[in-house]
Amino acid sequence: MAYTNHFSLRNIPFGIASTKQRQPAVATRLHDQVVFLSDLELDCSQQTKNAFQNNTLNALVAVDKKELSQLRNAIQDLLSNEHNVSKFGTPIADVTMHLPIEVKGFTDFSCSTEHLLNAGEAVLGVRSIPPAALHLPIGYTGRSSSIVVSGTPITRPYGQYRHGDEIGFGPSRAVDYELEMGAIIGKPSVFGDRVAVNDADQHIFGVVIVNDWSARDIQGFEMQPLGPINGKSFGTSISPWVVTLDALEPFATEPPAKQFPVKPYLQDNKVRSSYKIALEAEVLSENSATTVCKANLEWMYWTFRDLVAQQTINGCNINSGDLLATGTVSGVGGEEHGCLLEMTKGGKVDWELSSGKKRTYLEDGDGVRLTAYAGDGVGFGECTGFISAAKPL
Amino acid sequence: MAYTNHFSLRNIPFGIASTKQRQPAVATRLHDQVVFLSDLELDCSQQTKNAFQNNTLNALVAVDKKELSQLRNAIQDLLSNEHNVSKFGTPIADVTMHLPIEVKGFTDFSCSTEHLLNAGEAVLGVRSIPPAALHLPIGYTGRSSSIVVSGTPITRPYGQYRHGDEIGFGPSRAVDYELEMGAIIGKPSVFGDRVAVNDADQHIFGVVIVNDWSARDIQGFEMQPLGPINGKSFGTSISPWVVTLDALEPFATEPPAKQFPVKPYLQDNKVRSSYKIALEAEVLSENSATTVCKANLEWMYWTFRDLVAQQTINGCNINSGDLLATGTVSGVGGEEHGCLLEMTKGGKVDWELSSGKKRTYLEDGDGVRLTAYAGDGVGFGECTGFISAAKPL
Repeated sequence: MAYTNHFSLRNIPFGIASTKQRQPAVATRLHDQVVFLSDLELDCSQQTKNAFQNNTLNALVAVDKKELSQLRNAIQDLLSNEHNVSKFGTPIADVTMHLPIEVKGFTDFSCSTEHLLNAGEAVLGVRSIPPAALHLPIGYTGRSSSIVVSGTPITRPYGQYRHGDEIGFGPSRAVDYELEMGAIIGKPSVFGDRVAVNDADQHIFGVVIVNDWSARDIQGFEMQPLGPINGKSFGTSISPWVVTLDALEPFATEPPAKQFPVKPYLQDNKVRSSYKIALEAEVLSENSATTVCKANLEWMYWTFRDLVAQQTINGCNINSGDLLATGTVSGVGGEEHGCLLEMTKGGKVDWELSSGKKRTYLEDGDGVRLTAYAGDGVGFGECTGFISAAKPL
Repeated sequence: MAYTNHFSLRNIPFGIASTKQRQPAVATRLHDQVVFLSDLELDCSQQTKNAFQNNTLNALVAVDKKELSQLRNAIQDLLSNEHNVSKFGTPIADVTMHLPIEVKGFTDFSCSTEHLLNAGEAVLGVRSIPPAALHLPIGYTGRSSSIVVSGTPITRPYGQYRHGDEIGFGPSRAVDYELEMGAIIGKPSVFGDRVAVNDADQHIFGVVIVNDWSARDIQGFEMQPLGPINGKSFGTSISPWVVTLDALEPFATEPPAKQFPVKPYLQDNKVRSSYKIALEAEVLSENSATTVCKANLEWMYWTFRDLVAQQTINGCNINSGDLLATGTVSGVGGEEHGCLLEMTKGGKVDWELSSGKKRTYLEDGDGVRLTAYAGDGVGFGECTGFISAAKPL
């Protein structure tokens, strides 16, 4: 898919691209053209110019936000000239996109009250919100090493799981996706310091689509009481393009009203502290695509700003390149389940591909395509991955 | 304390040291002398020599294990000559020790059945082992950004906690230590691949002392069902010296017999797959030291080899510089509680400092000193930290 309409002049995302002739380096995208930033004559600091040559965005995201906004404006000016686009552009079909960030720290929060209710019902049979989840964004620290770029195959993981009264071991029988978005941290904070919720935007470089692949059987067995490890750490996919907060600001919107008064560190003076971003998940199988979820980021109870404040309220430092993700984005409707755990009520209810075949969880060869579109020419493209068969022991 | 006896010629640990004249670089220690490796005439590859100049051990730990063993032997040969020690040594009192590793990924497992029983009793009133904990090492993914070297002050964290029927917010009233050890990963693995338990030693560079500082009130409120984040991520201390598996091999010992047959990926052909390492925790307050725990690594139900196999059985890749920690090391005896949560039965029972003052959890200004000694001139020195008062909002 081209996603040409996601990458208008109002977007100007950042990513890492390579071609047959060029090593991976910082690039942006306009419609179906990719432009390497080092090719453009941009009036910016030497430090920033050096960052254009890197094979990750980590140095670039650490640049002062005011300079980054000026950089975006300058790129917009240059690329509003068709001549420059044809001079410097490479067709998207001719580039390879790479992992945009070496993710330093990854926290996957759980910002959707609907996901918590649905997942609780699927796993425990009880439709209730965990005790802390309406007072703070709960979550788990994720594994950074296995974060991969969209397109990277995900191998079905081995692990242990409940099998009736026995403990089974083998390839997971419950591989699932999770439709999420994540904030990429730009400006770091210092060990022992906090970032106020009202300063959080200064620390967020931009946003990506996240697929937090999950093996529900492995996760279900291991996670009491310390949370998931192996049920999650076999792979997490992110989209190759990071969309800046500047590009998303026109889509800022109010988050849902809080059900309880929040503590001072989560009291946000920004009214439109969330973003309206339409999300969709499709399962890809034998050349058919089946939409399994339509959702919107604006439904999240907690915002990216809240996540930064929560991560740092205890003095934990954040680094350039950290990923703070939303957890599964779900809504109240039956077509708004952001993962198969919810849609199948814990693997108990099957569903149909558009081809008519039955599914509960993902089978080998199945893929999942997540897309995100804010509107008016600003989108994220896709975050896609296919499940490969487990490697025999 | 000098710990001169921990650092005999049979040890040869690795760390990052600096002096007033020298930038941080790779060093070893013999008794009370620190020797920068770049000062020694060592017959090793240029890659390894370059690694000596770095301000972390990350490049060195990635070197082939055979070459690392030869390097250790060569250092032992050189430093067995007193002349070389006096020529190249700097007194430990004149050096500053730094964080030895930029920890990429941190998993804190829970390898002590006694800790699980005691912690369950303290928190839930039920002395039972979590469902998966005897079948695999359970745990949580930890926060890497806030791992600091011994000696770094730990600021009392703010957070939310249960306060009767209300939700409280403020400085934690239950700051605790956890006595742990951790394996530092040397050779990395590839995304999608597994490391067999019998190959695990090839991927472990060495071992450090770990203090997984915990705020029990914050942790207790947040951790259901996805595990702890803020109750842990305000700081984790590690010892400055990494002791290699070569140095620890004379202290290899059998781990406890498994209570259930383990799955194939945890079947270890090495009989003496654990290590006998005596551990001690002291609370330091107003110039008094009070021993609060004496324990031994050999009590752990799961070994470092098991942790490597568990981390990778699902295809999760490990990187040079990862830390895989044991969780709290506790024993069956009343003096063998590796954290205050256990010793105070969840903050309900107080105890006495050697000064006669009462304590439950740690107060501002209190310190915790963890020490580890394998025997016969091979030890880890100490891992120490003091609690600073919370920073006002």
